[in-house]
Amino acid sequence: MPEELLAEASDDAFVAAMVTAEVALSRAQGHELQVAGTFDAREIMREGRAVANPAEPLVRRLRELDRRAHEGATSQDIVDTALMLVARRSRELILEYADAVAAGCAALADEHRSTVMAARTLLQQAVPTTFGLKAAGWLAGVAEARARLAAVELAAQLGGAVGTLAAYGDRGPDVLRRYAAELGLAEPALPWHTNRVRVADLVDALALVAGACGKIALDVILLAQTEVAEVRPPAGGSTAMAHKRNPALAVVAVAAARRLTGRIGLLDEHERAAGAWQAEWPVVADALAFAGAAAAATRDTLAGLEVDPERMRGNMTPDLARYPPAGDTFVDRALERYG
Amino acid sequence: MPEELLAEASDDAFVAAMVTAEVALSRAQGHELQVAGTFDAREIMREGRAVANPAEPLVRRLRELDRRAHEGATSQDIVDTALMLVARRSRELILEYADAVAAGCAALADEHRSTVMAARTLLQQAVPTTFGLKAAGWLAGVAEARARLAAVELAAQLGGAVGTLAAYGDRGPDVLRRYAAELGLAEPALPWHTNRVRVADLVDALALVAGACGKIALDVILLAQTEVAEVRPPAGGSTAMAHKRNPALAVVAVAAARRLTGRIGLLDEHERAAGAWQAEWPVVADALAFAGAAAAATRDTLAGLEVDPERMRGNMTPDLARYPPAGDTFVDRALERYG
Amino acid sequence: MPEELLAEASDDAFVAAMVTAEVALSRAQGHELQVAGTFDAREIMREGRAVANPAEPLVRRLRELDRRAHEGATSQDIVDTALMLVARRSRELILEYADAVAAGCAALADEHRSTVMAARTLLQQAVPTTFGLKAAGWLAGVAEARARLAAVELAAQLGGAVGTLAAYGDRGPDVLRRYAAELGLAEPALPWHTNRVRVADLVDALALVAGACGKIALDVILLAQTEVAEVRPPAGGSTAMAHKRNPALAVVAVAAARRLTGRIGLLDEHERAAGAWQAEWPVVADALAFAGAAAAATRDTLAGLEVDPERMRGNMTPDLARYPPAGDTFVDRALERYG
Amino acid sequence: MPEELLAEASDDAFVAAMVTAEVALSRAQGHELQVAGTFDAREIMREGRAVANPAEPLVRRLRELDRRAHEGATSQDIVDTALMLVARRSRELILEYADAVAAGCAALADEHRSTVMAARTLLQQAVPTTFGLKAAGWLAGVAEARARLAAVELAAQLGGAVGTLAAYGDRGPDVLRRYAAELGLAEPALPWHTNRVRVADLVDALALVAGACGKIALDVILLAQTEVAEVRPPAGGSTAMAHKRNPALAVVAVAAARRLTGRIGLLDEHERAAGAWQAEWPVVADALAFAGAAAAATRDTLAGLEVDPERMRGNMTPDLARYPPAGDTFVDRALERYG
Repeated sequence: MPEELLAEASDDAFVAAMVTAEVALSRAQGHELQVAGTFDAREIMREGRAVANPAEPLVRRLRELDRRAHEGATSQDIVDTALMLVARRSRELILEYADAVAAGCAALADEHRSTVMAARTLLQQAVPTTFGLKAAGWLAGVAEARARLAAVELAAQLGGAVGTLAAYGDRGPDVLRRYAAELGLAEPALPWHTNRVRVADLVDALALVAGACGKIALDVILLAQTEVAEVRPPAGGSTAMAHKRNPALAVVAVAAARRLTGRIGLLDEHERAAGAWQAEWPVVADALAFAGAAAAATRDTLAGLEVDPERMRGNMTPDLARYPPAGDTFVDRALERYG
Repeated sequence: MPEELLAEASDDAFVAAMVTAEVALSRAQGHELQVAGTFDAREIMREGRAVANPAEPLVRRLRELDRRAHEGATSQDIVDTALMLVARRSRELILEYADAVAAGCAALADEHRSTVMAARTLLQQAVPTTFGLKAAGWLAGVAEARARLAAVELAAQLGGAVGTLAAYGDRGPDVLRRYAAELGLAEPALPWHTNRVRVADLVDALALVAGACGKIALDVILLAQTEVAEVRPPAGGSTAMAHKRNPALAVVAVAAARRLTGRIGLLDEHERAAGAWQAEWPVVADALAFAGAAAAATRDTLAGLEVDPERMRGNMTPDLARYPPAGDTFVDRALERYG
Repeated sequence: MPEELLAEASDDAFVAAMVTAEVALSRAQGHELQVAGTFDAREIMREGRAVANPAEPLVRRLRELDRRAHEGATSQDIVDTALMLVARRSRELILEYADAVAAGCAALADEHRSTVMAARTLLQQAVPTTFGLKAAGWLAGVAEARARLAAVELAAQLGGAVGTLAAYGDRGPDVLRRYAAELGLAEPALPWHTNRVRVADLVDALALVAGACGKIALDVILLAQTEVAEVRPPAGGSTAMAHKRNPALAVVAVAAARRLTGRIGLLDEHERAAGAWQAEWPVVADALAFAGAAAAATRDTLAGLEVDPERMRGNMTPDLARYPPAGDTFVDRALERYG
Repeated sequence: MPEELLAEASDDAFVAAMVTAEVALSRAQGHELQVAGTFDAREIMREGRAVANPAEPLVRRLRELDRRAHEGATSQDIVDTALMLVARRSRELILEYADAVAAGCAALADEHRSTVMAARTLLQQAVPTTFGLKAAGWLAGVAEARARLAAVELAAQLGGAVGTLAAYGDRGPDVLRRYAAELGLAEPALPWHTNRVRVADLVDALALVAGACGKIALDVILLAQTEVAEVRPPAGGSTAMAHKRNPALAVVAVAAARRLTGRIGLLDEHERAAGAWQAEWPVVADALAFAGAAAAATRDTLAGLEVDPERMRGNMTPDLARYPPAGDTFVDRALERYG
């Protein structure tokens, strides 16, 4: 798992994002919260776990610094906005990793458009294909998943106690607009405290990225089997056997993709859920971490991949010679659409 | 569960969709498969289960009618395309239900923009809101989910044995284009037999619709509690107690939303998965059925909903009088954006 | 999926089980419900879906035959008891399949205790093992899973409207005892209408059986790869390629194991859930069907498996010769404990 | 989430458990690994993530101290055994919490055996019950789940590179026996490196505990609703509204129960999985954390629960007076069986 991504989803980063949201809130109301020094993020998160609310211990501290802190807001506003800020920075990293995966696939597709190999269905040799076309298929998957992730709208959340912003009187919509602008997040038509569609959408898109990368890594592991040996991925050490070349990075990618199975439930009661909302954060944090891990490990797998065209040709059984070869039209189309 | 939707996802409908795909394939190659009479769908599906391949028994029968049937195609082409055809018709129905839900929410939002009630967080009365704003929040959720579902691209699948279309020689891309056009499905840049992103995307979007509707139904159930009694949803019978008004339709919606938890895994090996692909169809079929059930039951719940503004006002505790009332700016914004 | 198992979980079987429960209930009260003829199971289930309650339409019909039908009971009593009856018969079949899988593993373990082959970790050849030890590991998994499934207690459910059995006055516990005895199900200490632990336990145990069988099938698929070819599983037809031997049965088993991912949620509100209970039945039905499918297909895979000891020996790379061979102590221990 | 439980599942605790396993391994072979000082757990886990193997960086360090360290073992032996050691200590804590929950339920069941209240099905008042019987139902659920968790066998894992223990020659079974005895873990019949039934069983049992506790917490939240007010759970602060009593602990329990949805997949390839095994640890760690959080928060919720029998009686609608009251036979039976 990339350390830079873990850092973005750490307790420190989350508490910093909550502070950013509170400062933006104060500016949106025309004054500026002065936050000197930093807070002990672990302590704040520890206290927050006890009341299912990580904003509460922070707000208590901020109000000691400035009694106008958090004015008109509710804890969920700050937590949801911090989640969007964390997701934004993490998403940037994940999109970079996915772009590198796509570039790796595109390079392989182009280079190996004429490298003949056995296509395998149900893990049996079927008819000939090319390694280029195989890589073109990988490219399509990761590019489509990446596009879905890039399209998810990350929006500021500000609704006050129950989503009316009534504490601001008529200024409510104006405060919301300024708050979103300060943060560089989208301004929602109305507070989304119990409309969790965008959170679910984010997790779903991250699962697509993880899955599309995991598929590539799984194919690499299968092609790297001792008996197949058509590719050699970068290897990690074995504690027991000196001769072994474990496809460790590809395994990291597959493991991460397999882990990303949770869904956001959406069934939040009334104006704040009694349990469903509080169960969201670990799902989102896992999704960011696992999608990032899958994408980064797949990027590194492709970057260090050695391809053996001789072996690909040699592995084909005589049966396959009776079938026509694959052309490269679909490689061209994939490079044009997704490259 | 709407019977019309069950019919769309029945064995009969699925076999008919496979036949449609085979006929389109023959036309795309310039001849026309003549299919006289019908097939026993249950028998075909029964035989198909035994080999994890519902196309195989159909193709055997078609080849007895016309030896050119299925030429150049593989079973997965037909099954995937049939899945897209079934999904298309089912999606039309589900979008209709979701539109009716959105219309019901919009009407309530407009009518009750000034109907004051207690907002509840963690199921405790918090501060005042309006029933109109609550309905506006429902509207936002279902409209966003509906838009996601409508945007999923349904594409024809044709790749031949392993996705090269090599059996058609240079004509491959042309056959694919005609095949997609015959079916009225999108033409993919390249065969997507092991790129399952669009299938996952479909299931994810269906889960959003089910969840957004389930959230509405859950709120209705909570507002209809004996001790709250602010709304009266349409009731279903109880076998044990004559006086009870079970919110049966809303319960159907919540149950359907809770059921839709599966994900499409994406980790398909090489050019056809050994298990992952074969596990997809029940997930998609469930997702279509449960999203449809949630949407239709929520539509009917809203259509028969009686709202009691007196009770809403009367239920508010004295504490709430100290808080400012909710305006209707966000109701207007919701109606403008999503109405 | 075995047709005999599908029949046990069909609408017909479920309605018949509900009738059995109602008859047992009448006998437990000292009279006997006379049910002449049969009911249209599809119609009853269709009506039941509309009110999230399959017992309601049946009870209506039974009361036309005998006004004392269903006396003192609630719909959930009948549905839960029918679920237990369906599970009992299905479990018998699944245990039979699992026994056959275990017997197949034991036979392979014994026969191939000295058949040397490469062990593979992360799909790379590691050091030598024997095919007998591999089969012994399969045996341990399936035997442990089978034991868990056999140990799940299937109990009668009778609680009346809300679990008090108050309609029977002091006779309540006595009626419960007789009812359970009539049905041959365990008598619970108290009604379990909102204590779904035993339902969750059943689904969990079925997932273990499916998973343990799926692991065997996955290993078979991997060993049967064209380039490995150490075993030949029974083959199913391909629609596109005459030369291919698809490991169709093993794929059925893996697909079934992958599908069985749902959990029973347990969060049932008060004395009957508003959605959670109603979402259970499809999960249980799926679990029975998929566990049965995985076990039956694995049984048939092992029954038709051809093992190639020559190829196993020949596939080993020279590196492996430096490592000591595997003994057969653990084979003996596995056969003794689980055989 | 209880801090003592988080500590048991921390990186520090996991690395310490791996060291414990390595020391036990050395003793089982008749010498003793001398581990002076401690290791930087974060650094070891960081390095481990990069190769999907947390034992590898530890073993490298240990071998610098003693070249015989890890002799005959593989990384998975150490990781799996450490997992069992962590699970053992965490389970002790969780069983304590569950016992306290059961004791709280039993006390309420006994004290309130005659406290009449409305039973609610589908969140509608149905007929009368007693709060004692309701608590007796909670008791049954948590006691059954607790018994399942206590029954899970935690076993040592030692198989060497591929599960043959061949590196020890004939001494293999003897080393395994001593190793298990040193650790106080069960001795398995054979290495279980790719038979993950016991890991899945552990996670399933933890989910039962979380769910059974979450059901109690959910009922408390519903009974504590402003309009119902039949119980007052311990309250946590609100950042926005001074008058609110948020049922914060009960919400923690429900959130934790909702989070625990993952399953262990069992489909591990050959003698070590390429992804499935590596995806297990976060699922187990989550399951321990969330089950513990649900149980501890439910314990504290019950410990501070104020019950209002007057309000319970007063909330009942006149319809309920026509139904017979609940007896306390089932309360007695529950206390006898589970108390």
